[in-house]
Amino acid sequence: MVLEQIKSSQDLKKLNNDQLDILAFELRKFLVDNISKTGGHLSSNLGAVELTLAIHRVFNPAKDRIIFDVGHQSYVHKILTGRKDDFENIRTLGHISGFPNEKESICDAFNTGHSSTSLSAGLGFVYARNYNKEDYSVVSVIGDGSLTGGMAYEALNNASTIKSNFIIVLNDNEMSIDKNVGGIPKYLAELRTDTKYQNLKEKVVSGLDKVPFGNNINRFIRHTKSSVKQLLIDGMMFEDMGIKYLGPVDGHKRKDIERFLTEAKKVNGPVLVHVITKKGKGLEAAEKNPEKYHGIAGTNNCSKDSNAISYTNVFSNTICKLASNNDKIIALTAAMADGTGLSEFKKRFPDRFVDVGIAEEHLVTFASAISKNNLVPVIAVYSSFLQRGFDQIIHDVALTNSHVIFAIDRAGIVGRDGATHQGSFDISYLNMIPNMTIMAPSNAKELEEMLEISINLDGPVAIRYPRGEAKKVANETYTPVVFNEHEVITKGKDVAILSVGAMYEEVCSLPEELKVKKISASLINLRFIKPLNKEQIINFAKNHKMIVTVEENVINGGVGESISQIITSNNIKCKILNIGINDEFIPHGSIHELRALAGIDKDSIKEKIIKGYKN
Amino acid sequence: MVLEQIKSSQDLKKLNNDQLDILAFELRKFLVDNISKTGGHLSSNLGAVELTLAIHRVFNPAKDRIIFDVGHQSYVHKILTGRKDDFENIRTLGHISGFPNEKESICDAFNTGHSSTSLSAGLGFVYARNYNKEDYSVVSVIGDGSLTGGMAYEALNNASTIKSNFIIVLNDNEMSIDKNVGGIPKYLAELRTDTKYQNLKEKVVSGLDKVPFGNNINRFIRHTKSSVKQLLIDGMMFEDMGIKYLGPVDGHKRKDIERFLTEAKKVNGPVLVHVITKKGKGLEAAEKNPEKYHGIAGTNNCSKDSNAISYTNVFSNTICKLASNNDKIIALTAAMADGTGLSEFKKRFPDRFVDVGIAEEHLVTFASAISKNNLVPVIAVYSSFLQRGFDQIIHDVALTNSHVIFAIDRAGIVGRDGATHQGSFDISYLNMIPNMTIMAPSNAKELEEMLEISINLDGPVAIRYPRGEAKKVANETYTPVVFNEHEVITKGKDVAILSVGAMYEEVCSLPEELKVKKISASLINLRFIKPLNKEQIINFAKNHKMIVTVEENVINGGVGESISQIITSNNIKCKILNIGINDEFIPHGSIHELRALAGIDKDSIKEKIIKGYKN
Repeated sequence: MVLEQIKSSQDLKKLNNDQLDILAFELRKFLVDNISKTGGHLSSNLGAVELTLAIHRVFNPAKDRIIFDVGHQSYVHKILTGRKDDFENIRTLGHISGFPNEKESICDAFNTGHSSTSLSAGLGFVYARNYNKEDYSVVSVIGDGSLTGGMAYEALNNASTIKSNFIIVLNDNEMSIDKNVGGIPKYLAELRTDTKYQNLKEKVVSGLDKVPFGNNINRFIRHTKSSVKQLLIDGMMFEDMGIKYLGPVDGHKRKDIERFLTEAKKVNGPVLVHVITKKGKGLEAAEKNPEKYHGIAGTNNCSKDSNAISYTNVFSNTICKLASNNDKIIALTAAMADGTGLSEFKKRFPDRFVDVGIAEEHLVTFASAISKNNLVPVIAVYSSFLQRGFDQIIHDVALTNSHVIFAIDRAGIVGRDGATHQGSFDISYLNMIPNMTIMAPSNAKELEEMLEISINLDGPVAIRYPRGEAKKVANETYTPVVFNEHEVITKGKDVAILSVGAMYEEVCSLPEELKVKKISASLINLRFIKPLNKEQIINFAKNHKMIVTVEENVINGGVGESISQIITSNNIKCKILNIGINDEFIPHGSIHELRALAGIDKDSIKEKIIKGYKN
Repeated sequence: MVLEQIKSSQDLKKLNNDQLDILAFELRKFLVDNISKTGGHLSSNLGAVELTLAIHRVFNPAKDRIIFDVGHQSYVHKILTGRKDDFENIRTLGHISGFPNEKESICDAFNTGHSSTSLSAGLGFVYARNYNKEDYSVVSVIGDGSLTGGMAYEALNNASTIKSNFIIVLNDNEMSIDKNVGGIPKYLAELRTDTKYQNLKEKVVSGLDKVPFGNNINRFIRHTKSSVKQLLIDGMMFEDMGIKYLGPVDGHKRKDIERFLTEAKKVNGPVLVHVITKKGKGLEAAEKNPEKYHGIAGTNNCSKDSNAISYTNVFSNTICKLASNNDKIIALTAAMADGTGLSEFKKRFPDRFVDVGIAEEHLVTFASAISKNNLVPVIAVYSSFLQRGFDQIIHDVALTNSHVIFAIDRAGIVGRDGATHQGSFDISYLNMIPNMTIMAPSNAKELEEMLEISINLDGPVAIRYPRGEAKKVANETYTPVVFNEHEVITKGKDVAILSVGAMYEEVCSLPEELKVKKISASLINLRFIKPLNKEQIINFAKNHKMIVTVEENVINGGVGESISQIITSNNIKCKILNIGINDEFIPHGSIHELRALAGIDKDSIKEKIIKGYKN
């Protein structure tokens, strides 16, 4: 095994071509063997084997700064930089993460997780290198999908001001998580495939030499940036922005990539190397269906109850059902049709579905304008990604009270994707915004009803629900969702537990369990985070000795504080205990482990209630 | 007067060319006469007179949807759509706003204020028009500065998927608020000015006809999108993205603009009309110094104390002073060097100053990478614009505890710019983020000291201060700022008033005034919003009957709630009154009027305290 010999990327430089080819094969086998057990991002890593090898041979990741955009294509990089042995534990608590992490290795230059950040980070390193008069290379590796994100463009635009070397590697696999949409992806596709244009280019350039005033033109060519020659070179769009373009190069021919990277190192200024890779390369099934193999669950992870249904699926089914009876509903996503459950909607209602690409800012404002035309846009998005649209929610949606519905998936702790992906903040960042309605279901049926209610409300509405399974409830015990009403599940007299959404599963047995401790507990399923029903909250506070709020969100700015606010501003004497995520980031691990770590699993909640009550 | 006759843009269509020229002159005079009294955006509106006239003649703003990006160039549009008579009251409470406002007129299609939103909104209208099978034009008017914003690019990228007419008017005045920076502005400048290139183009195109295989090439030209002809046409970058390019056209030749717009209407798909205007056109002083005349104060607004200094100036002086002794300090801005007070720094330390353009997302991540290289980046930014970098603060700064300093100007109520610009949210959106330190000065000296402290701290630090004047304090009464300590100004025994930053000026006389009501009040200048000094807070709560928090920020998620959280979680029996901005948007008006409206002026605060205490 060649792979066994690689302790750091320095070892790569001693290998010959045959050994390197074997290594590429071994890396793919290692990835497939491990990820099929551990879960994680498969396709993108299989596609980046030769590219990563080439980068590691041309650069020194311990000294040069290599930044992997989004970061889920960094597994090979991790394997080559001393983290192979922990790979079987990747994405589990206390072990290596699925994304680059500065704390894990000096070779991880910059933490990534969200899309389109690598160029900004790269430029920061370049600026500092120049200012500090240091000598190292900065390489940002960015996918074609990430290039649809606005901040990547902000950085590209800024890159032209740099007068020293900055290498952008465009890892172009013709897709982000979903198929790319829009002008840039189309443009890249043309660069890749237009052989007619390639031929034409050659003919025209050689033709010019034969024109009588050709020499005259050639002088112009040397003296103007926007010269014919440059116009005729691929990648003019990047060149227009002042970024030198090299490529395209086959992303599975390591030697070719190395040659281009070596060339790129010599450029004084920003340079883009266009590398064309195939997602899932080497694994036939993944090559054919890269979306399916984008992120896989792994056999190590706990088996699923086949009767259970995920919140994502409940959303998927419900939005289709609602849309079939209401042709005003338009579904929108930012490159996450699969993940958010909109694929079925897309199939059934193609003219009412828009995927804007990785572009959450645009998405939110776009939806607002749609809502002003007697239509009802529903945005399906992950909690942590919607952070990108924060200003637009305030400025373009809430300020004019536009009727935009946010179906917020992956709210709360998401588990193995870790700190960058936890949905720890959405209650806080939405709760502060005027005009918002915010709901959280605790089971499948509630999500269905909340979606239906949201269609008929005015103004912006958010429904936040977690990754994972939704409980089905028996019809006989179910109380329908009523706008602005909190559901009383159990009536007690000492403590009232006010639970938000999926936290219900942690607290539902507590009234029974607290009896043993002589505490009589009410259990309330909040359902509505905003607006809160003040009358109900005041009554809960008046009729109990202690109010306990439980939410899977940071305590700062969460609904617990809003409930406290109602109690204290009404001057009610009553203990208050706000339970939620403390003022810290939550790492990767299983959802159960992380809830325990954050002190929001059943046992921690129970202990806090007992302690707070007896105090 | 022609202007007197214009009640709606329909009236424009009856005028002949001479009358229209007179009208343009009268509009400029009207703008200068009024804005010199009322204050507001002068240069950009003077530059957009002919453009707006042309748009109003070719389109019907009551039916077609015209969206003005940023919106401060919409004054002529307002004058032409029935709001001339209220113009003398523009930006005052209860009167017309300085930005497009859907509530003011059916002709204001979409509220704007922050940059780069108009293309997303335009696309939303186009989508809805097509889906609803309606028939109207959608025109987004965007400046070259706004084009550096990432969300504009996200929308441009998305525009190529549109198969019906969508008109983008690029109002290119070669500057945003500050001079543009980066590749796109450079590219536009080349489109505008490269006459060599223009000549070259003609020579090559005509030359091709003479080449033996010219016909052959011409066939290629017709059949490939990336054809030589198109390559040789200006605006290839937009064409690359699938957007038809028309122009450039002189933005002060109304008839020419009308011709281009009429042409643009016929395009099936997205089309960009490149209009070149001159900011401040017609007013010599403004043409020469458009930045100075970008936003002017107006003689109607209250006279300034010539001895007073603005917080912005204090920041400006202090950052220069600190930088002269510390070459690790790097100052960064997003197209707001003047507004944030960094112009002096830029002059004195050009190699340590970066203006990234209107690109807050990029700015924040860029700063984080700079901080990882033993440098101290200081971002100067407005509170409401930093909302754009919210995800990046969490994901790229706070998560790795990067030492980035945010000097947040225009925090709290900003006055006449109104709802889109109020800094009502920054305490909430920063307070929820782990690892943040947040401070707020109540006078000039504190801002100086806080900046100095922030340089020596670890992790992300925010200092928020308002638009307006900073009090100078006498040295003998001044207590230096100590990290994590709240300053006790006055000691009482009934009520403790905990004041945040500039709210100090509203509450400083209250201990004296409350004595009359037999209330003995302590006054605490909080200084630190995060971390709070728990021990001090607990002592305040234990030693008073009521705690009053006062902040110029929404109550939801504000520091008042964090203080309540400490008191309730420590089970201290004490009344709590949180005063701040209620759950609503604050319109335009004078800062004093708006504070009164929001219930955070001195009289309102006093009344609330008396009522709360007696209750």
